[in-house]
Amino acid sequence: MQNHEYRIGKLHLSKESSVHAPIQQKKVAFFVGMGNNYGPIKQDETLVFDKVVTNIGGAFDDKTGIFTAPHNGTYEFTIVVSAQGRQKAAAMLMKGRQMIFTVWAESIPFWATATNRAILNLQQDDQIRVVLMSQASFLYGYMYSTFSGYMLFEDSSGDICRIKLQVISLEFDQ
Amino acid sequence: MQNHEYRIGKLHLSKESSVHAPIQQKKVAFFVGMGNNYGPIKQDETLVFDKVVTNIGGAFDDKTGIFTAPHNGTYEFTIVVSAQGRQKAAAMLMKGRQMIFTVWAESIPFWATATNRAILNLQQDDQIRVVLMSQASFLYGYMYSTFSGYMLFEDSSGDICRIKLQVISLEFDQ
Amino acid sequence: MQNHEYRIGKLHLSKESSVHAPIQQKKVAFFVGMGNNYGPIKQDETLVFDKVVTNIGGAFDDKTGIFTAPHNGTYEFTIVVSAQGRQKAAAMLMKGRQMIFTVWAESIPFWATATNRAILNLQQDDQIRVVLMSQASFLYGYMYSTFSGYMLFEDSSGDICRIKLQVISLEFDQ
Repeated sequence: MQNHEYRIGKLHLSKESSVHAPIQQKKVAFFVGMGNNYGPIKQDETLVFDKVVTNIGGAFDDKTGIFTAPHNGTYEFTIVVSAQGRQKAAAMLMKGRQMIFTVWAESIPFWATATNRAILNLQQDDQIRVVLMSQASFLYGYMYSTFSGYMLFEDSSGDICRIKLQVISLEFDQ
Repeated sequence: MQNHEYRIGKLHLSKESSVHAPIQQKKVAFFVGMGNNYGPIKQDETLVFDKVVTNIGGAFDDKTGIFTAPHNGTYEFTIVVSAQGRQKAAAMLMKGRQMIFTVWAESIPFWATATNRAILNLQQDDQIRVVLMSQASFLYGYMYSTFSGYMLFEDSSGDICRIKLQVISLEFDQ
Repeated sequence: MQNHEYRIGKLHLSKESSVHAPIQQKKVAFFVGMGNNYGPIKQDETLVFDKVVTNIGGAFDDKTGIFTAPHNGTYEFTIVVSAQGRQKAAAMLMKGRQMIFTVWAESIPFWATATNRAILNLQQDDQIRVVLMSQASFLYGYMYSTFSGYMLFEDSSGDICRIKLQVISLEFDQ
């Protein structure tokens, strides 16, 4: 048995033989909420949610309440705040020190919920968090108040489909 | 003409020749709502929405109001409830028998809407539904009250890019 | 050195050699809002948002407020309207001349926010917009009122993974 090595000039391919290839999609998604009521507070503060339901990819830090973008890409974030019994609850979505949007729920007389969401193009390491506003800081729990988000897509259309191929045998008609 | 069969040890590939490959992304998304007002009711019940706008992948059963996860993966769900004229509308997002979140809209004096959403990692066949709560069960219709969701991504980074290749001809320099 | 050309009947492949392939995912996402208060108005009108935060793919026209679907596919849209000081704000999500859903926020006595969202399968060139309703048209700004959306996935499972391959060398055991 000989071991030949050939230099090949061109390989023409058409779509006939079948290969399965895994897609290495980067997965980033989180969903947290307040299980307990929270507030009031005297100064604006970053909300640390007491219930973490989902944290795919681990980009949300449950100790600090800060989401750190793991990749350059486009992300979605939704805040829901609820207040009860003549209380108010308001919060801002912050990208670093920049306010993106605000939500304000005012339960006069009894009950209120407010929801807002953003879609943002972020650079890796950008930080997103919810700041509870001291002037309206009585947040109703029991998962009526939540924060969630995920990555829609990465910026680069780069190498995210990795394909492993090996030729096992080759039949020639010559 | 001879028909040779060769055993090949190694095939080195670089990125030069071009092949298009279809991606077989699994698509799951639904959007339903109340066209008519609904309630009040005496016991908590699974909401059956009377208007199905979108049901890509068919995972939402419009007869029962139950969404059954067709794949292991991460999903998003949003509930919007609206109430009018001193009525209340409240609903829970349920995963099986577990409450994920609640929304409560209280139209005192006139009008209220409440929205909440979850991102959940589900196993295939997990069931998600909206339960209308009897103590606040007058739901305003006209698509002010809606339920929607979709799959963000599958758990496995498995075989979802199927590529069909065939070598048509091969030129050697030897 | 000879240049042979072989006709090949079959090429059997297994998953061993590694190739990276770019995925050409089509990216469509926008997020706009009202930086300033707006209204009241005398006739229903398409809302033109004064603050464009994100417009990946350029499908949202910030001059007209109209989103035009760039591809056949499934899309998500969320509207948030806020009102303050006994004012009302209501808007419809329109697909062409068809109302998809309505949101109504009534700030009696002080403050209200309403949020709704749709998931829609659209044909290329379908137009989506927010129509502010004249009977409830005092919209609170400061990014309390927003409009956002994105494409979940394209209809076709067509050629979106383009793979470039070239055989550099081939080793035979014969």
